[in-house]
Amino acid sequence: MMLRLLLGSGGYRTPERVALLTREMRSFFGDIHQLLFVPYALGDHDAYLNMVKERGLDAGYQIIGIHHTANPRQAVENAEAIFIGGGNSFRLLDSLYQFDLIEVIRQRVQAGMPYLGISAGTNVACPTIMTTNDMPIVMPPSLQALNLVPFQINPHYFNLPVYLKDGDNYLPHFGETRDERIGEFHETNDVPVVGLWEAGMIRIEGASARLIGTGARLFRKGCEPIDLQPGADLSDLWQCSGV
Amino acid sequence: MMLRLLLGSGGYRTPERVALLTREMRSFFGDIHQLLFVPYALGDHDAYLNMVKERGLDAGYQIIGIHHTANPRQAVENAEAIFIGGGNSFRLLDSLYQFDLIEVIRQRVQAGMPYLGISAGTNVACPTIMTTNDMPIVMPPSLQALNLVPFQINPHYFNLPVYLKDGDNYLPHFGETRDERIGEFHETNDVPVVGLWEAGMIRIEGASARLIGTGARLFRKGCEPIDLQPGADLSDLWQCSGV
Repeated sequence: MMLRLLLGSGGYRTPERVALLTREMRSFFGDIHQLLFVPYALGDHDAYLNMVKERGLDAGYQIIGIHHTANPRQAVENAEAIFIGGGNSFRLLDSLYQFDLIEVIRQRVQAGMPYLGISAGTNVACPTIMTTNDMPIVMPPSLQALNLVPFQINPHYFNLPVYLKDGDNYLPHFGETRDERIGEFHETNDVPVVGLWEAGMIRIEGASARLIGTGARLFRKGCEPIDLQPGADLSDLWQCSGV
Repeated sequence: MMLRLLLGSGGYRTPERVALLTREMRSFFGDIHQLLFVPYALGDHDAYLNMVKERGLDAGYQIIGIHHTANPRQAVENAEAIFIGGGNSFRLLDSLYQFDLIEVIRQRVQAGMPYLGISAGTNVACPTIMTTNDMPIVMPPSLQALNLVPFQINPHYFNLPVYLKDGDNYLPHFGETRDERIGEFHETNDVPVVGLWEAGMIRIEGASARLIGTGARLFRKGCEPIDLQPGADLSDLWQCSGV
């Protein structure tokens, strides 16, 4: 079966961005009925499920919260498609381990079940969550994640200077830049990292991987980063060792 | 002996901020000769040591890199004072475990050795590094840290909207706000968190704890956050359970 993933950066907070995401979801999921929604990245699962429906992020599909199912593993085994939402990646991964869902999700996706991840849901699709932006509020048993793609994604990526808006003034903010953080990742890890701008997505179908909606910056250990344009073909990331 | 810590937020990137920090360092360390500098939060230890000297962040004290000592534990045991620099908190804590420095630093500081932490060096002074902003590029054996103070600090704190400067335009950036992240921390943890604005410091001497240079926001589980002004007395944080 063909691997099928739609991995979103997050930041779907404007009507244009919601329209971009849901249009892509319709095209990606096609003629299915129900999405199994995994809200574990946030603390209040019901509130998250309601928010997804209210904002129209269900794209018109029936959506069922995994926290409402009697047996989460069984729910994954029976799902037509899975949608893992955003929030805190450490908490999400911890819950996936706690409910023993890592292997069953991996097996179903590798057998062709479509996977939609947003932000934290995109982080956990990668080999590890080591390129998350989130705060380590809980410690999962491991940072190893679903390992569905051979590269890391850094969601909510940007490489512009950060300013804080204080009334009418913009104040500079220091602290490490995102590029510095990803550079630090490559001081101790070899896996390529795709910095995915907000609202962007990577759509993977078998051997095809394409950047949708925004640009991205590709970081490989020991190389200068490369800026990619919307529509760019990312399938090379499956062809090489990544170093 | 009296507990003595100077915990800096980071962002000492302007002449005014460097002057604020080094003036406070002179007042805090007083009449000692040498600082033992711990550069483990960055990958290139020599470059970091040189940068500290070049920017004048040694405040005129002799500074010796712990990575140049034959026996890091012995170096801590013999140090007049310790200065733990910023970078990646996960890498820093991992190195402190790797070199078996957690207990010896804790014992020396509890016995009165002055401790200066900047950014990551401030994170590791807390009970855990669960309120770091850093990327988990390596996994330390535990997120438990030096536990020198009974509260968490979030360095580089801000609660203003984030914009990215693109030419002459400022673009909004979404993703969790810092207050949302700290709120998530309190969904699974009880320890109070001090959000410390860049350039700010907390100076602790025995029962006295004072905010220096900037404001801060105090987060307690289940309470509204409280904004504190420069000079605020933080010693209440030792008086209560924190919930």
